[in-house]
Amino acid sequence: MKLTETQIGEHLQRIPGWSRDGNQIVRELKFENFKSAMSFVNRVAEAAEAMDHHPDILIHGWNNVRLSLMTHSHGGLTEKDFTLAGQINQLD
Amino acid sequence: MKLTETQIGEHLQRIPGWSRDGNQIVRELKFENFKSAMSFVNRVAEAAEAMDHHPDILIHGWNNVRLSLMTHSHGGLTEKDFTLAGQINQLD
Repeated sequence: MKLTETQIGEHLQRIPGWSRDGNQIVRELKFENFKSAMSFVNRVAEAAEAMDHHPDILIHGWNNVRLSLMTHSHGGLTEKDFTLAGQINQLD
Repeated sequence: MKLTETQIGEHLQRIPGWSRDGNQIVRELKFENFKSAMSFVNRVAEAAEAMDHHPDILIHGWNNVRLSLMTHSHGGLTEKDFTLAGQINQLD
């Protein structure tokens, strides 16, 4: 079920580093090098596969990773997005 | 050394799937699933590390990968970009 604006605001407070970007929530992370960035991306991929919920992942400028989450089937944000975001925050 | 427009045009013909996008060359690939997309991304990452030349990599819509290459230190396209693009074309 798509979350309301109020729910989204509350959920965002529980996942430091993430912010709203239109229909999505996004987080930008910087790593020491490309290898560390890729290693993080692979941990994210594992969590995503386990939940069968897949963020868009952009690796850019060799050591930056931008993650974007939304529930495409609902055209917006659901509990699933915040659950995965919370899991990802345990990984970096 | 930054390549001329003529050189870029010639080089592009040798790397099927890639096209020009401003200062970059880009390729978009579709995979069967997220796992295959990630496996490809990891092979690209290995080639990139070996050359110490890193494309921007976007994994999106769970099974699509968009690669973008340029030589930031030269503000444009160099031989290095086309060498890596050629190597990447052996990987998919």
